[in-house]
Amino acid sequence: MTELTPPVVILDKSQMAENIGAVARVMANFGLSELRLVTPRDGWPQERAWATASGADWVLEGVRVFDSVAEAVHDLNTVFATTARPRETRQPVRTPRESARILYDDTASGLKTGLLFGGERAGLETTDIALCAGITTIPIDPKHHSLNLAQAVAINAYEWRTLILDAPPPRFREGDPPASNELLVGMYEHFEAELDAGGFFHPPEKKPSMSQNLRVMLGRAAFTEQEVATMRGAIHALAKGRGRVLAKLAEKRAAEAKKGE
Amino acid sequence: MTELTPPVVILDKSQMAENIGAVARVMANFGLSELRLVTPRDGWPQERAWATASGADWVLEGVRVFDSVAEAVHDLNTVFATTARPRETRQPVRTPRESARILYDDTASGLKTGLLFGGERAGLETTDIALCAGITTIPIDPKHHSLNLAQAVAINAYEWRTLILDAPPPRFREGDPPASNELLVGMYEHFEAELDAGGFFHPPEKKPSMSQNLRVMLGRAAFTEQEVATMRGAIHALAKGRGRVLAKLAEKRAAEAKKGE
Repeated sequence: MTELTPPVVILDKSQMAENIGAVARVMANFGLSELRLVTPRDGWPQERAWATASGADWVLEGVRVFDSVAEAVHDLNTVFATTARPRETRQPVRTPRESARILYDDTASGLKTGLLFGGERAGLETTDIALCAGITTIPIDPKHHSLNLAQAVAINAYEWRTLILDAPPPRFREGDPPASNELLVGMYEHFEAELDAGGFFHPPEKKPSMSQNLRVMLGRAAFTEQEVATMRGAIHALAKGRGRVLAKLAEKRAAEAKKGE
Repeated sequence: MTELTPPVVILDKSQMAENIGAVARVMANFGLSELRLVTPRDGWPQERAWATASGADWVLEGVRVFDSVAEAVHDLNTVFATTARPRETRQPVRTPRESARILYDDTASGLKTGLLFGGERAGLETTDIALCAGITTIPIDPKHHSLNLAQAVAINAYEWRTLILDAPPPRFREGDPPASNELLVGMYEHFEAELDAGGFFHPPEKKPSMSQNLRVMLGRAAFTEQEVATMRGAIHALAKGRGRVLAKLAEKRAAEAKKGE
C-alpha cells in the first residue's frame, strides 16, 4: 500500500449535522481524514455530528470551516466536484474511478487534491464548480437519482482506497504541476477586473455567466504557477496598453480641441 | 447498457428500520430492486423504513421476509456474503469489483444472483456464509472498520451498476450452471444425516463445525443440478452399503453364536 495524503473532502452548505457525521464515518472507513465545511447551515461544531460519526471523532475534531468554496479550496491543486452530469458543460466529466486515478497520480506528484460536494438540497453552484478541475458523476439510475450525501462521499472514497491498495505505479505528471486554486482565482479576478474596466461585460447582467465561462475555459488549461504569472503579465500589459491608447486618444482630442479654438 | 436482472439483496437480522429504508434508497440509486429480509428485529413492515427510503417505495413494497438465510437464498444460484475477511476461511474472498464481475457473468448466463449482508451488530453467522459462493470484503481501513449497512450495500450496488453501464461482453459459463441453493442444502442435509447415522460426528459437540467445513468444501465445487443428483446417489449408495456391511456382520455373528452353542 502506498502512503499518500488522501484527498480533502469539502462539503458546501451542508444542512444536517447527522450527514456531516455520516460523512466523517465513511471517510474514516476508507482512510480519508481532512474535512472542510463551507457555511454549514446550523454552524459548527454540532453535537449531532458526533452521534452519527460512530467513533470517527478525529475527522470531526479536525474540521475547518470556510466562508466560501473558493477559500476552502485555496491551497488545493486538483479538486473534483461530485455532481450530476450537467446538461451542458465545457468541463471534463468523469466517473468516480477515472477521477480517483487522476487524484492518485496528482497526489503521487506531490499535489494537494480535494473532493467537493454540494448541500443536500441545493447541490453546487455553477460558479463553484467552475473552480474545479472537473466534474465527477456517479452512475446513478435516472429513475431514482436522489443519492444520500454520505453515499456520494463513500463511492469516491472507496475508489480512492481501492486504488491505493492496488498501488499501481503512479503516472507522474510531465512538466510542472498546476498552480494552486488561490493563484488561479487571483488571476481570474485580475482578468475580470481589467475586462470590466474595458467594458467587456456587456450587457452588465451577463457578467456572472461570462466570467464563469472564462474561468471554465482557462481552468481546463491547468496553468502552472509560472503560467499564471505569464498570464497575469499579459493581462497587465493589455490593460496598460489600453491605458496608453486611451491616453493617446485623449491627447489627440485635446490637440484637436486646441486647433478648433 | 445491458438489461439484466440485478442481484437480490438479502439483509440478515437487520436491527434498525431506518437502515432498511436507507438500503432501499441506495438500491434504487443503482438500479437494484429486490430486497429480502431475514428475521428483521422489529418485524415488517416498519413505517420508519419509508421515512429514510427517500421515495424508493417500490423496493420496500416488494420486500419478502424469511425465517432463515437458507430459505431466503433457496432459489438463487450465486450469492456472495459481504463481510470482513475472515481470519481463516476456505471460501474465496473477493473485492466488490471482482464479485460484481462474477455476478454479472452469472446473470448473463441466466442465473439468479444475490448479495447477503449481516445485521448491524452481529454480522453474519458462519453457517450462513457457508451457504454462499464466496465472500466479498470491502477494502476498509482497519483503523475504522465499522461500515454502515447502507454503505456496504451502496459499494456493491455501485460496482454492479458500473459494470452494467460499461457493458463488457459477458463471459458465458462453460457447461451447466450451478444448482440452486435449495438443492445444495438438500444435499448437505442428506449427507449430514447419513454421516450422523454412521457415527462420523465425533465428538458430537463438534458436529456444527464439522458440517460447516463440509458445506464450505463442497460449496466451492459449485455443483450443477446433475452433479447434486450424482452426489446424492453416491451418499445413498454409501449409506446403503454400510447397511449391507452391518447386516453381513450381524449375520456372521449370529452364525458364530450358533456354532458356539
